[in-house]
Amino acid sequence: MNAPDPQAAWLPDTPRREVPEALIKALKTRFASQCSTALAVREQHGRDESAFTHVPPPAAVVFAESTADVADAVKLAAAHKVPVIPFGTGSSLEGHLLAVQGGISIDVARMNRVLSVNAEDLTVTVQPGVTRKAVNEAVKTDGLFFPIDPGADASIGGMAATRASGTNAVRYGTMRENVLALEVVTAQGNVIRTGTRAKKSSAGYDLTRLMVGSEGTLGIITEVTLKLYPLPEAISAATCQFPSIEAAVRTTIQIIQMGIPIARCELIDAATVRAVNAHSKLGLREAPMLLMEFHGSPTGVHEQAELVQDIAAEFGGESFEWATAPEDRTRLWTARHNAYFAAVQSVPGCRCITTDACVPISRLADAVLTAVAEADAAGLPYFLVGHVGDGNFHMGYLIDPDNADERARAEHLNHQLVARALAMGGTCTGEHGVGLHKMGFLVDEAGEASVAMMRAVKHALDPDNILNPGKIFSL
Amino acid sequence: MNAPDPQAAWLPDTPRREVPEALIKALKTRFASQCSTALAVREQHGRDESAFTHVPPPAAVVFAESTADVADAVKLAAAHKVPVIPFGTGSSLEGHLLAVQGGISIDVARMNRVLSVNAEDLTVTVQPGVTRKAVNEAVKTDGLFFPIDPGADASIGGMAATRASGTNAVRYGTMRENVLALEVVTAQGNVIRTGTRAKKSSAGYDLTRLMVGSEGTLGIITEVTLKLYPLPEAISAATCQFPSIEAAVRTTIQIIQMGIPIARCELIDAATVRAVNAHSKLGLREAPMLLMEFHGSPTGVHEQAELVQDIAAEFGGESFEWATAPEDRTRLWTARHNAYFAAVQSVPGCRCITTDACVPISRLADAVLTAVAEADAAGLPYFLVGHVGDGNFHMGYLIDPDNADERARAEHLNHQLVARALAMGGTCTGEHGVGLHKMGFLVDEAGEASVAMMRAVKHALDPDNILNPGKIFSL
Repeated sequence: MNAPDPQAAWLPDTPRREVPEALIKALKTRFASQCSTALAVREQHGRDESAFTHVPPPAAVVFAESTADVADAVKLAAAHKVPVIPFGTGSSLEGHLLAVQGGISIDVARMNRVLSVNAEDLTVTVQPGVTRKAVNEAVKTDGLFFPIDPGADASIGGMAATRASGTNAVRYGTMRENVLALEVVTAQGNVIRTGTRAKKSSAGYDLTRLMVGSEGTLGIITEVTLKLYPLPEAISAATCQFPSIEAAVRTTIQIIQMGIPIARCELIDAATVRAVNAHSKLGLREAPMLLMEFHGSPTGVHEQAELVQDIAAEFGGESFEWATAPEDRTRLWTARHNAYFAAVQSVPGCRCITTDACVPISRLADAVLTAVAEADAAGLPYFLVGHVGDGNFHMGYLIDPDNADERARAEHLNHQLVARALAMGGTCTGEHGVGLHKMGFLVDEAGEASVAMMRAVKHALDPDNILNPGKIFSL
Repeated sequence: MNAPDPQAAWLPDTPRREVPEALIKALKTRFASQCSTALAVREQHGRDESAFTHVPPPAAVVFAESTADVADAVKLAAAHKVPVIPFGTGSSLEGHLLAVQGGISIDVARMNRVLSVNAEDLTVTVQPGVTRKAVNEAVKTDGLFFPIDPGADASIGGMAATRASGTNAVRYGTMRENVLALEVVTAQGNVIRTGTRAKKSSAGYDLTRLMVGSEGTLGIITEVTLKLYPLPEAISAATCQFPSIEAAVRTTIQIIQMGIPIARCELIDAATVRAVNAHSKLGLREAPMLLMEFHGSPTGVHEQAELVQDIAAEFGGESFEWATAPEDRTRLWTARHNAYFAAVQSVPGCRCITTDACVPISRLADAVLTAVAEADAAGLPYFLVGHVGDGNFHMGYLIDPDNADERARAEHLNHQLVARALAMGGTCTGEHGVGLHKMGFLVDEAGEASVAMMRAVKHALDPDNILNPGKIFSL
């Protein structure tokens, strides 16, 4: 008898649906070499950065090159009531891409054209496979930038689908605030448009924001119009070490409560500084650290920096190390963006169970310090990074994905942390989404009646439940 | 034979439903003196600030004092499949409150308690009948403010339901960005919660933003949690007159394209300045004017003001008149907020057909100047005000509500203006909502397929179509 799968206990129980040979044949006819059933390709599309590594892959992968490709693939799948799972860069963290009910993957990475830069209106329209870095490349000659930056160089489609954010959200908001309009392929294979390029609108239901964060369960995003921002006249980044995590967090709370328009305010614990030093060849002192950035006019940046230095000093923050030259700032932020990978690589063979709670700022110290104390007591390797200016922080518990005991201990820590965040008026997920892994937490957070409303919306738009089924809630 | 109703041609054709005596009796039993069937009360609840004055009122008005009252009223109405229309302060502009299919009005004005001010988290939770001014009264001693300010002292519930904004949106966003969480009574009379007090979240479908802007058609809002902001250290307001509307608009475009974080940037045309002078006893020079406000540190405000003065000078803007003392600023902004009423009162007996287009900022001069030229040619009295920093402007055509010819000419101007805004990538409504009056425009803007998706959501959540039926789209 085989041992029970140590991961299965943490996955929702959902039936796998059959993918008929007739569908595969139809896809091959329509898509020729744009459709692959090779095992390696399917396996690459059947996983993400989550700690679930045992779910069988999708039956086929369609490499869409246009909205019409996506619509046709959905129509063919819909005719057989077969699941479709959109795929961008594969960097999601909560099992969003796993084919838990079988089906086919629709890879949009080849839909990577920047369709129009409207510099005068501070907007850009892109296909969903364009990555955040590619957006910034396309607009920088116009003196503009797009601020949303999850650690990975994720696709804009995937970022919209998970309502992603990152280090700049404290000042510029998340994908919720920065997506103006979408083109979406529905469960029926129809193409709809939501929103306009106007900065605000009261024209009917906010379908744009219904789609943003819907994790591929209500439609497949095929075009995204984003807000852009003028590159600030002055930018300064700084690191500051603190005697304790608490001191760094209390500094952050005061910065936010005073309304200082800080552009980035990131916490990194000593262990993660060590991992980042090793991964990115930096010589940062290994102590709890805030990594900050200030945007504005030269005097504005100077004013903000002075205020923040005063606050940090009150909590024992040591002298600021400034990075004003663009290449120095880029080195620092690249290291920050690689912190997740640096930490995961610090324990060979591990996978990471990442928390993503976000709490009202006044509760941040309690939330972080208790989580750290619990993790220390549990004796699992972990890292702590956080978009603390937003009240959002990530504990990453590093486990052997096939060690049931380690997983159980990590999940226990995760559950304690989320329960506390919810009791504080916070959320189980600030930016990673629900996916497979937070379905229980969503019910705890939103309540059965609210999740029932989400299910009703899902059923209305996708009655055969073919769009990324088995994610967000059971259905 | 009676003459045909001159207003009916501009209203959607929707059947009126019967309100059975049994429901009225049940409401009187449950609500006693909180339920009124007096004609004057019903008539007051059957109209708003729109130019529709002939729709018969609701059959009864329930004055809800709690969430339980709202839920019970909805349950009783639902049992008879009778429409319910939530009512705040009656200040909406597009016929949202009119009982076009009959039914009962649920007035939430008595639900006017500020439930909790969380100053440390920059949030406040209020009942829906609290007005925007009452929110600001409640939080000012904590050094905080709530920026969203439609002209009227509207209720927070109504503002959420219409996705309202106002003069501060250029810097602080609209109700879309500033509502964190809601309590909502569903069509079944259940109570759900959406969102949390966390600043950001990726926890499932964004029901908060689905409800914001749904105009009472998906649920009745019974509690709202809002973002607050620290009162700026320095605030300066200024007026500046321009030789033409074009000069004022081109100044605005350049301010926005340069990314100057202006807090308010309002256009008022010469005729409206005249009406405002008469109404609010101000002595402003009667020329096209920008009314601006700057928020920040003293040096930041100074910097912004210098930049804006330089830009204005390039376009012939005359010397700035500054208002730094709070009472002077209040006088100016009160006058601005009363501009609509001042203009309407300038033509005795008139009603106003107000446009609300919002366009990408680069197209604003075209949009405004063509609208002005067309209105001048049409010979109707009108006013022009605009939240031009957002690309949003209002032409108000002042008509005799029973003069079919004037109405037809005003509607023709409105249709031309909206068609142009949509062709520019804009929206038919920046902040007033669709209501009865923009249902056709919504289809033009969003497309049939997108409106079909809205209808599917509506049908899923309110299968008997009792929540403010006949608004946003035909159903």
